[in-house]
Amino acid sequence: MKVSVIGATGYTGAELVKILLGHPEVKLGSITSKSFAGKKISDVYPNLDTDLVCDEIDLDRISSESILVFVALPHSVSMEVVAKLYSRGKKVIDLSADFRITNPSVYEKWYETAHTQKELLKEAAYGLPEIYGDEIRKASLVANPGCYPTSVILALAPLLENELIEEEGIIIDAKSGVSGAGRKLTLNAHYPEINESLHPYAVEGHRHTPEMEQELSKMARKKINITFVPHLVPINRGIISTCYATLKASLKKADIFGFYKDSYDDAPFVQVLSPGEFPHIKDVIYSNRCRIGIAVDNSRRRIIVISSLDNLVKGASGQAVQNMNLMLGLDEKTGLG
Amino acid sequence: MKVSVIGATGYTGAELVKILLGHPEVKLGSITSKSFAGKKISDVYPNLDTDLVCDEIDLDRISSESILVFVALPHSVSMEVVAKLYSRGKKVIDLSADFRITNPSVYEKWYETAHTQKELLKEAAYGLPEIYGDEIRKASLVANPGCYPTSVILALAPLLENELIEEEGIIIDAKSGVSGAGRKLTLNAHYPEINESLHPYAVEGHRHTPEMEQELSKMARKKINITFVPHLVPINRGIISTCYATLKASLKKADIFGFYKDSYDDAPFVQVLSPGEFPHIKDVIYSNRCRIGIAVDNSRRRIIVISSLDNLVKGASGQAVQNMNLMLGLDEKTGLG
Amino acid sequence: MKVSVIGATGYTGAELVKILLGHPEVKLGSITSKSFAGKKISDVYPNLDTDLVCDEIDLDRISSESILVFVALPHSVSMEVVAKLYSRGKKVIDLSADFRITNPSVYEKWYETAHTQKELLKEAAYGLPEIYGDEIRKASLVANPGCYPTSVILALAPLLENELIEEEGIIIDAKSGVSGAGRKLTLNAHYPEINESLHPYAVEGHRHTPEMEQELSKMARKKINITFVPHLVPINRGIISTCYATLKASLKKADIFGFYKDSYDDAPFVQVLSPGEFPHIKDVIYSNRCRIGIAVDNSRRRIIVISSLDNLVKGASGQAVQNMNLMLGLDEKTGLG
Amino acid sequence: MKVSVIGATGYTGAELVKILLGHPEVKLGSITSKSFAGKKISDVYPNLDTDLVCDEIDLDRISSESILVFVALPHSVSMEVVAKLYSRGKKVIDLSADFRITNPSVYEKWYETAHTQKELLKEAAYGLPEIYGDEIRKASLVANPGCYPTSVILALAPLLENELIEEEGIIIDAKSGVSGAGRKLTLNAHYPEINESLHPYAVEGHRHTPEMEQELSKMARKKINITFVPHLVPINRGIISTCYATLKASLKKADIFGFYKDSYDDAPFVQVLSPGEFPHIKDVIYSNRCRIGIAVDNSRRRIIVISSLDNLVKGASGQAVQNMNLMLGLDEKTGLG
Repeated sequence: MKVSVIGATGYTGAELVKILLGHPEVKLGSITSKSFAGKKISDVYPNLDTDLVCDEIDLDRISSESILVFVALPHSVSMEVVAKLYSRGKKVIDLSADFRITNPSVYEKWYETAHTQKELLKEAAYGLPEIYGDEIRKASLVANPGCYPTSVILALAPLLENELIEEEGIIIDAKSGVSGAGRKLTLNAHYPEINESLHPYAVEGHRHTPEMEQELSKMARKKINITFVPHLVPINRGIISTCYATLKASLKKADIFGFYKDSYDDAPFVQVLSPGEFPHIKDVIYSNRCRIGIAVDNSRRRIIVISSLDNLVKGASGQAVQNMNLMLGLDEKTGLG
Repeated sequence: MKVSVIGATGYTGAELVKILLGHPEVKLGSITSKSFAGKKISDVYPNLDTDLVCDEIDLDRISSESILVFVALPHSVSMEVVAKLYSRGKKVIDLSADFRITNPSVYEKWYETAHTQKELLKEAAYGLPEIYGDEIRKASLVANPGCYPTSVILALAPLLENELIEEEGIIIDAKSGVSGAGRKLTLNAHYPEINESLHPYAVEGHRHTPEMEQELSKMARKKINITFVPHLVPINRGIISTCYATLKASLKKADIFGFYKDSYDDAPFVQVLSPGEFPHIKDVIYSNRCRIGIAVDNSRRRIIVISSLDNLVKGASGQAVQNMNLMLGLDEKTGLG
Repeated sequence: MKVSVIGATGYTGAELVKILLGHPEVKLGSITSKSFAGKKISDVYPNLDTDLVCDEIDLDRISSESILVFVALPHSVSMEVVAKLYSRGKKVIDLSADFRITNPSVYEKWYETAHTQKELLKEAAYGLPEIYGDEIRKASLVANPGCYPTSVILALAPLLENELIEEEGIIIDAKSGVSGAGRKLTLNAHYPEINESLHPYAVEGHRHTPEMEQELSKMARKKINITFVPHLVPINRGIISTCYATLKASLKKADIFGFYKDSYDDAPFVQVLSPGEFPHIKDVIYSNRCRIGIAVDNSRRRIIVISSLDNLVKGASGQAVQNMNLMLGLDEKTGLG
Repeated sequence: MKVSVIGATGYTGAELVKILLGHPEVKLGSITSKSFAGKKISDVYPNLDTDLVCDEIDLDRISSESILVFVALPHSVSMEVVAKLYSRGKKVIDLSADFRITNPSVYEKWYETAHTQKELLKEAAYGLPEIYGDEIRKASLVANPGCYPTSVILALAPLLENELIEEEGIIIDAKSGVSGAGRKLTLNAHYPEINESLHPYAVEGHRHTPEMEQELSKMARKKINITFVPHLVPINRGIISTCYATLKASLKKADIFGFYKDSYDDAPFVQVLSPGEFPHIKDVIYSNRCRIGIAVDNSRRRIIVISSLDNLVKGASGQAVQNMNLMLGLDEKTGLG
């Protein structure tokens, strides 16, 4: 089985290539790159031990040789390519934001661009396997979630699905490594500006907020509004999302942990920590796991759920491969050691 | 005017020595260190350009030569020393937690040790000059605040004093550099365990919480309970406290900024940022400044106040020198560049 | 095939466990830890996705269930354990320094301890597969090289074996990440002392120097003395060794690169870079590869060879698994993706 | 006394502004910035506590109000501006490379641009106060040295001036923080490319080499060629230069240290460490000091001299202020606490 990666030389694309090179059940067909076409990807990312050469995008060739295609292009550039691959009957996993938001006018507002593939939006499964495994298995098009949404939805799903918390007043204070901002040069990733610092950003509105609200609302079967403040941390990889919510009623700690265990018992990549334990970023980077710690203060009906993952793996490319495994009928864990 | 530093070779003590070496109006008398008595402090901290030698603690000598003494000893060790200096008529600034909590039983619960100087507690001014300048000027004993409390109280004071926010539901998500944990060896400051990571700690209760609740309650003239979650960040210095609260009523942004300007107009070390601007740690380290950014979302009555400071300067030793300046009748900014 | 790890909770031992968990041809039998016996290793290293529990050392049990045993104990502690396993007929890979130095009096001088297993020294193959592959395949006891020696020997071997450089005046300026110093608490790995700094250490003599001189002398068939200065870099993993030597005669660049290609053509983990390219640590960490760049200045007969590797992988545990593969008749690359 | 800074918003310019703001004897006149003209410099560098606004370059105004002007422009841009200021009778300190190399054809080769102010080259004093204090005091134009050259010349001067080492075979392995590369965006300062890495660069020729060779040759009164390999280290500030040379004859350690003490006895910013001590970058950053450690191995006539400094302070802006102090007849240390 051959799969291809369109947009292989961003951080997300390169991570995807790395994971797929070690995958025992699929082979890499084409990898494409606008900036580095004709070059070996190992010249751009010498940590990749392969002789694969980056191609220009040639959808005919890619379609003929691939059973499934990953599209890791910037948002708004992605949608056209996805549509063409879809129309040729290919399975597609889109790592951009283009098919995550089901309401195109919400997308258009936050991403400040027209959505040209609105009819395709309803075909897209939201690629969070712990929640939508069945849809993903049957889907031809999967919208791979954002890194922050993955960490937040996994943290809050058991609470919302079981109606344990108030819909109002959910606060998420998130912290992310710098690779999340991509390989494009910007003062916000210029070493001396970032190192030995830390700062909040997009305080008054981050693009991942509507994506999170959409998914959390589906779970709650009610409109959920959240307060979301991300912070940039001087590390390469990893996210910690510290989520604060209000319990509807006092609940025994053991019961709350029980809901989490029930939700994630057969989720091989989600680890619910024991009471009193909380995640460290170092324990999840370079893995597809999401680790979740929970604190409960019944005196104030406060619950704090803290989740951690690697933004490039479970927050992007590892999750994409997990989705691929489901779409191809493979074991979910294949190649994600 | 000579001043002395008891406990000069912890990170806080050494920062104090550094600031005092550059202070134009006072001279350093004794500096003491249990671990390094007899050694030049520049052998322990080669960044300090001085020939000063660390002494054993000799309270007679220290008292006779010093107009004011800084005590930078661990909590519970500090209180006895402070009491002896106080009884000899010296002005004292205590950088430990021993005189910050006015209710000794709260202290004893959180610090798990008996308070042996209860009568002295009521003599201590809480050393936050922006709030208690007048008391500090007249005090003989100043309890220098904790680093997190300084960042949080300065962030929330204008809101609570002006009764703009609900007393319930205040959440503080704080991020601190590693120097805050001190020079004592621990796995939690072992380089490979911390670098490229980030983690929450003391999620279910941090010692600075009662200190913050005490001060915030005084301002609000009501009992304030907060949710406080600190995180350890792989940087040497600096704190960002991201504070979430609920407005009692919709308020024009300009009015809110006006309250902050009023509160801090004559506070030389507090900088209220313009709307849309938020602090970066790099902008405050190695300075005594606290920078504060504010976001308002009236649609949900949500206000977010984000403050930043250097935990070793405005969060400890710089603030102690600011207090000293007030106690000695000097300009508040002297020696604090 | 089952293999065991004695000393599994140091950084080297834990890396070994991580690699072996993903190895397709062997299973982990016992893992032992003095400090954490009875605990799951994932409680100590949560990045390890396993339920394995650390045992006390029980050589009978370990011998009966294991075909090969890795010993990752501190030097001088290791030798007795190795001898007992060897006498029970087990294949052993020792990651300590105890069997690297063939002359026991040199060992005793540099490691300041008696060598109690001198007769076993001559049984030990020096575990650098690129040089001693044949011996390693047949050996029952392999002394896994130090991290610095691996980087330096691989850098200089083609020059010395082909008699291209002077024996005098070889200088090695090495830079290493902090994990090389281990998990034991020390001020030299205390975060605020190391972060944003860099310093030379052991300038007047490092224990890896006699190991390097022994091996380089063997290659040169002459006594080689080197100047070796290591530096501690604020990163977790990785070594760059910058080696300076004097060419015996002017040589065409292409010829020099040719010697390197010849030496390493069938070495899957050594990558000789093209002229003008030099290694970055980021390109080798988390891999078993050693990347080598070469600069030649014939006008001064100067050659500079710069090698890089991950001190925990090719410099320790990855190399140990590479040795295991050879000793068990497996493909050298198995499990080292 | 008013001084001005042309090019105030690069890292070097901003550091200069910071130091001058705290200088007790001079006032800042104009500060200029092409990119940020009309903006407060504290909007670009919020760590600067000033209301100063960046101007366009207006040489008439700058000349009329300033006794001395710092020019912190890129090389080749600088020379014209310097010439104009010089011709108006202003004292000038140039922080670019334009007046450091006395031989214009060497300059033109390494900097790949024509030198248009050749006649002015002979007026320029090389601004290393520890060596050229007398010239600097009398000079109207000072060429402020590069950061690497400052660290290397201070390390080797006592050896060359006293003819203690061979002229052949000097090797300098240098390590620098990222601020040395400036504020211009480049992949080589993009956070995820640099963090947790380290790499050599300009291995086959760095622009600072001819500057070092020029100065070292003057001291030795013979042509000195060096091998110089710089490395980029993931820290903001600081340089360690590890210099290897061959002693002409065996020399008592004490004598060698004596030569260093003699050379630097009245140099307030150079600290020669005791035998067995070597510098850490953390001990010099944010200061104007250069710390030097020395190791001698008489058995091989090898001497290793390791120097450290802050590339933005003693390696650039602090040294520029030290030069200014001399040119204005002030105490060398003024404002450089």
